[in-house]
Amino acid sequence: MPKLRVHNFPMSLDGYAAGPNQSVDNPLGEGGTRLHDWVFETRAGRAMMGEDGGEEGVDSDFIAAGDVNIGATLMGRNMFGPIRGDWGDGTWTGWWGPNPPYHHDTFVLTHHPRESIEMEGGTTFHFVTDGLEAGLERAFAAANGHDVRLGGGVATVRAALRAGLVDELHVPIVPVFLGAGESLFDGMAGAMEAYECVELVSSPRVIHTRFTRR
Amino acid sequence: MPKLRVHNFPMSLDGYAAGPNQSVDNPLGEGGTRLHDWVFETRAGRAMMGEDGGEEGVDSDFIAAGDVNIGATLMGRNMFGPIRGDWGDGTWTGWWGPNPPYHHDTFVLTHHPRESIEMEGGTTFHFVTDGLEAGLERAFAAANGHDVRLGGGVATVRAALRAGLVDELHVPIVPVFLGAGESLFDGMAGAMEAYECVELVSSPRVIHTRFTRR
Repeated sequence: MPKLRVHNFPMSLDGYAAGPNQSVDNPLGEGGTRLHDWVFETRAGRAMMGEDGGEEGVDSDFIAAGDVNIGATLMGRNMFGPIRGDWGDGTWTGWWGPNPPYHHDTFVLTHHPRESIEMEGGTTFHFVTDGLEAGLERAFAAANGHDVRLGGGVATVRAALRAGLVDELHVPIVPVFLGAGESLFDGMAGAMEAYECVELVSSPRVIHTRFTRR
Repeated sequence: MPKLRVHNFPMSLDGYAAGPNQSVDNPLGEGGTRLHDWVFETRAGRAMMGEDGGEEGVDSDFIAAGDVNIGATLMGRNMFGPIRGDWGDGTWTGWWGPNPPYHHDTFVLTHHPRESIEMEGGTTFHFVTDGLEAGLERAFAAANGHDVRLGGGVATVRAALRAGLVDELHVPIVPVFLGAGESLFDGMAGAMEAYECVELVSSPRVIHTRFTRR
């Protein structure tokens, strides 16, 4: 059975997976880039951005694993952009420039309908207005037997965990303190009873935790 | 200079270092023992309780390191016992039975004066009524050039971190979710700016994080 997988969804030591006040200038919220700095040190992270170099090792391996056997991506509106409400002039096409790092059908959950957008490199953004489970259904159809990656943001990952829809969850814990933002696990103890921690591995920079459904 | 050190002070993945509703039946709060189960699998943890066996390795090494060069212990009232207010009939002598695992002078912060209690095995409990810094002063004097270990509980560790008094902090992160209890790092981002994460090491059971003052 194809799976719904969350990969490289980092959290601070005080429990935040995004900083406060997400905006065009702070796509990950204030201080949120501190959760991702380690990615740019890795070979796989740089390759994702079309750059050479970077370190091999456990961090790079975990990043690379997030793309293996993924046929489609699903994400919440806040991960696609800072715009709230309707789509305005329709010029916003995501944070990632003309060639987003997905290279497959990517479904965005929103309350506001919009035509699909075909980007360079094989990514097509589709907009789903009838909820998480409908979005999942379309993503699995597009993935054509492969797995679906749930990209984020925090609210979408929490909702999917609460609904027991996530099959695999990889959370890198980064030794920084954000002080505010969107908590990943606060109030989630009940939902997380359905999951088992199957891997704990640390690099000098990041602790990788991986969960699967019991 | 002798140091103030916190060792083996575990936290759940949702950020709690103790469960809710500490009581005689639940010294670590409800569910709090889940933060300590791994200790009983280690050789050093069993030795602490006068038992043989247990696994060697990174977890055992971290537990053993908590006792090296420690000359005295300081703890908050809640770590010493579940009693609040005055000391009642004075029969409570801690959670640990007649031979506590300290084997040196151990200072308990309290608002309620009490005579010192000499236990078996070299542990003497002293009761300090004039605050954290006064307790530290007495503990360093008793440690006679060695370091002082700050045992807990959560409120005491947070107060000492806020005051910048802690020199070294070891927090094992345990992959469980308590859902409620006493948060270790919530609201502590400002205080933790004074600290640097100098070690991240994982066993299959526990992630060890270690901080020193910048």
